[in-house]
Amino acid sequence: MNLVTPYLKNENKRRASSWFSELRDDICSALEICEADRKAYTPNSSQKNGKFARHAWTRPGGGGGEMSLMKNGKIFEKAGVNVSTVWGAFSDEFKDKVPGAGNDPSFWASGISVVIHPLNPLIPTAHMNTRMIVTTEGWFGGGGDLTPTFPDENETAFFHETYKQACDKFSADYYANFKKSCDEYFFLPHRKEARGVGGIFFDNFNTGNWESDFQFVREIGKAFLTAYPRIVSSKMHIPWSEKQKKEQLIKRGRYVEFNLLYDRGTTFGLKTGGNVDAILMSLPPQVAWP
Amino acid sequence: MNLVTPYLKNENKRRASSWFSELRDDICSALEICEADRKAYTPNSSQKNGKFARHAWTRPGGGGGEMSLMKNGKIFEKAGVNVSTVWGAFSDEFKDKVPGAGNDPSFWASGISVVIHPLNPLIPTAHMNTRMIVTTEGWFGGGGDLTPTFPDENETAFFHETYKQACDKFSADYYANFKKSCDEYFFLPHRKEARGVGGIFFDNFNTGNWESDFQFVREIGKAFLTAYPRIVSSKMHIPWSEKQKKEQLIKRGRYVEFNLLYDRGTTFGLKTGGNVDAILMSLPPQVAWP
Repeated sequence: MNLVTPYLKNENKRRASSWFSELRDDICSALEICEADRKAYTPNSSQKNGKFARHAWTRPGGGGGEMSLMKNGKIFEKAGVNVSTVWGAFSDEFKDKVPGAGNDPSFWASGISVVIHPLNPLIPTAHMNTRMIVTTEGWFGGGGDLTPTFPDENETAFFHETYKQACDKFSADYYANFKKSCDEYFFLPHRKEARGVGGIFFDNFNTGNWESDFQFVREIGKAFLTAYPRIVSSKMHIPWSEKQKKEQLIKRGRYVEFNLLYDRGTTFGLKTGGNVDAILMSLPPQVAWP
Repeated sequence: MNLVTPYLKNENKRRASSWFSELRDDICSALEICEADRKAYTPNSSQKNGKFARHAWTRPGGGGGEMSLMKNGKIFEKAGVNVSTVWGAFSDEFKDKVPGAGNDPSFWASGISVVIHPLNPLIPTAHMNTRMIVTTEGWFGGGGDLTPTFPDENETAFFHETYKQACDKFSADYYANFKKSCDEYFFLPHRKEARGVGGIFFDNFNTGNWESDFQFVREIGKAFLTAYPRIVSSKMHIPWSEKQKKEQLIKRGRYVEFNLLYDRGTTFGLKTGGNVDAILMSLPPQVAWP
């Protein structure tokens, strides 16, 4: 069984890339629908419903992407949804860090990345991404996780359950394994604390059945689309206090610390000349280190 | 000439460590005097003059330090002055990254570190630190630099001139060399932009004359004490706009990016189990990534 063959097919690259764009459209719509929900509490009654603005960019070394950014919505203080499909060759410095690129630094990569910072501190910050990578090897990666300032047991359980159901369609082991990877990955060693309440995280995922793996990645994307807007909807009507907002800004500081100190996607992207605006779209709009 | 001998003397360690504490006292006083200056503009007239609160901490592996923190002053939104004297052994992971620690991981280190985030966006953010390090080698390091949101040529020239005069007392080469090191060090490669307008930066500094090198380090500390409060004084009466404040919060984002992505002191400290509060005292109180 050649694990990489299906990853080299243009048809499969096209399908993955086009799925990531479709998911982007669906996530952007779902968040714009949240904005239009009349039950949302907003401290500023003249606040208009947030809308995504889309901005395309090209990568000098090959390929490009589109950033979708919503700013100052009633519900989403900042939400960024990036899709990109890029190709080229890794620098000497980085090729040894990527599976299958040591002897041949060529790569192709396509993915979607979402980071959502709600205005209401009672609504959790959320992150999801999925990607397909091809070097002399090929694999999928991705996941989704929640970072509440004020964790809510039922909400956390619902989020995890949605991922569990998606995982269980493919293998009884996936959820437990990918949940564990998520807890290990989204951890701030210097503070000895988790970034949030977890979710799932997987990387170098290739079972030998591209079709089934691709369907799994689609399910994982849809699970986020199912879970997060419902979480938003269940909290959007609740007013918050200044004290709660302050705690959210501090919690966001931990998010920044994680992304700039440890996140492989962020540090890798910045150090390999990726699109700075797209990569740092993940950073919260307002942050505090008191 | 044995370069390390004077660094091993308890008397020299004591003198360095006690100078860093004296400089801390002088810098804290100078900043509190700024706070008491009646010409300072403040948008909130009931705002009290800021005062430093001091907090001692001990390091499990040996030694400890004192943090001095001023929060929500009329002029200084957040100012942190740390002194520490610590000793022990570097972990296997880090000993090879420190000169002279590869075969014997023991170290002794003492220093002062200052980061000042003014409320008024027209007053530049400032940083200074000086330190003495002993492994099987011994050296001084440090410097000072300015990060204005709105650079002012005369102010920048004055800041640099103060350091130049301090440097010139010891060698005609120092200023040019250490200014260049500063420009190289405080640079954000992912944005291809300087963190600020520079100053000086030196490391592994050991001419073989401990006494003279120590006097140089003292002069460098005094240069900051001369220059920065005068810069503060020259801008403190000027009111600012919301737009200027917003630009300051964005500029502070670059400061966070630098400190968490590239600053050796920060990443080294966090990854070697340093005091998190003391290390991250450098992060601005409020930041924006719009």
